[in-house]
Amino acid sequence: MQRIKCTVAYDGTPFAGYQVQPGKRTVQLEIEKALREIHKGEDVKITASGRTDAGVHAKGQVFHFDTGLSIPEEKWPTVLNSKLPPEIVLTWAEKVSGDFHSRFSAVKKEYRYCVYQNQAADPFKRHFALHYPFQINIEEMRNAAEYLIGEHDFTSFCSAKTEVADKVRTIYSIGIEEAEEEITFSYIGNGFLYNMVRILSGTLLEVGRGKYTADDVRGMLEAADRGAAGKTAAPQGLYLWKVYY
Amino acid sequence: MQRIKCTVAYDGTPFAGYQVQPGKRTVQLEIEKALREIHKGEDVKITASGRTDAGVHAKGQVFHFDTGLSIPEEKWPTVLNSKLPPEIVLTWAEKVSGDFHSRFSAVKKEYRYCVYQNQAADPFKRHFALHYPFQINIEEMRNAAEYLIGEHDFTSFCSAKTEVADKVRTIYSIGIEEAEEEITFSYIGNGFLYNMVRILSGTLLEVGRGKYTADDVRGMLEAADRGAAGKTAAPQGLYLWKVYY
Repeated sequence: MQRIKCTVAYDGTPFAGYQVQPGKRTVQLEIEKALREIHKGEDVKITASGRTDAGVHAKGQVFHFDTGLSIPEEKWPTVLNSKLPPEIVLTWAEKVSGDFHSRFSAVKKEYRYCVYQNQAADPFKRHFALHYPFQINIEEMRNAAEYLIGEHDFTSFCSAKTEVADKVRTIYSIGIEEAEEEITFSYIGNGFLYNMVRILSGTLLEVGRGKYTADDVRGMLEAADRGAAGKTAAPQGLYLWKVYY
Repeated sequence: MQRIKCTVAYDGTPFAGYQVQPGKRTVQLEIEKALREIHKGEDVKITASGRTDAGVHAKGQVFHFDTGLSIPEEKWPTVLNSKLPPEIVLTWAEKVSGDFHSRFSAVKKEYRYCVYQNQAADPFKRHFALHYPFQINIEEMRNAAEYLIGEHDFTSFCSAKTEVADKVRTIYSIGIEEAEEEITFSYIGNGFLYNMVRILSGTLLEVGRGKYTADDVRGMLEAADRGAAGKTAAPQGLYLWKVYY
């Protein structure tokens, strides 16, 4: 058996998220269906770096699987893409050793959150960015982001439904870039809790609008209570951008 | 009665084109449905600058309608957008005199056709540009475009199903811009025949790949035969960009 590591981009719009769920169309379901076809009916399970929710996109999700087929690594994208729907595109594949694991071997992840501020909604962006037609104070958001960088207990910044006990994570950097009425947040960290990037983005946007100050964000972290932080920003602005190994 | 001129953007992906067709979801149907609601059940017919096909987009389609309501012109976008689905967004509205006509008063139109050349398909562009992963000679396409500019009989460059008798049109300019593996064609002319921009774009791309020379394009015009020109490029790359009055 050979382990194959794949990088995949997907438009999350038509999917009920990444992970298989009974009766739902998911990204994992489509990829496993394609692999089953390639393996002549044999079930092939894939393991990804993590889940993404309904409507969330990926530019660089990573998954691995084991195969008995002797397809050269550089052929896997063509072979899989020919069986996949156009919303899912394999961009890279390589052979890895059997101890590589998409989830446990990951050392860092990058997520991006995209916002556009134009007064009128844009029909071409509705599935790919959050419409936020308000005056935003970028400097105050950057000041708030400074408090979030580093190792913290992010209990206030994850869904109350989060099942993991240890909510301490490290954010290495938060970039906030503005260009032509678009704002892009980029977060690099050692791991992210359930809904964490959406809550961070929703909170920073509310800082930008003046509902909270940068100092308030420090208090939110200390509160360790989901009710203390801002809103969960909508899924369509979120992209799993890159997984680092 | 007051005539209102509106500019509208739409993502053509989910529609069976602009024009009302029995049993189909179209852009005109959605706008007339919204207007009927605003006019308390009264039918309001809209007239656009022209049709767009299934999957074709608009950044600046123009239509007009007559209303007895005394809504200020600057309020119409908000009023209509609140009733329209998110794929259709009114970007401008103004009062015009009763002799203004979206179709007959138009003096020029601009269409754009978008192509991306990346080797792998891009799931985020699949509805918004043509995937054309080939080496393209931009200079040869520009040379070919020179033959197309001006007043010509465009019989070779419209669908054989075109019903209008006079196939003479004037193209004022053809721009071909390349940036980051994307090519954008922009056409400004006094009018365009059925499928004309898609056939022009398909033919120019085949010139870019070397199937035809620029000189061949001159011959295609002279042939006055749809069979002489290149392929009809796919609808998702096409945008009705602007209508000039």
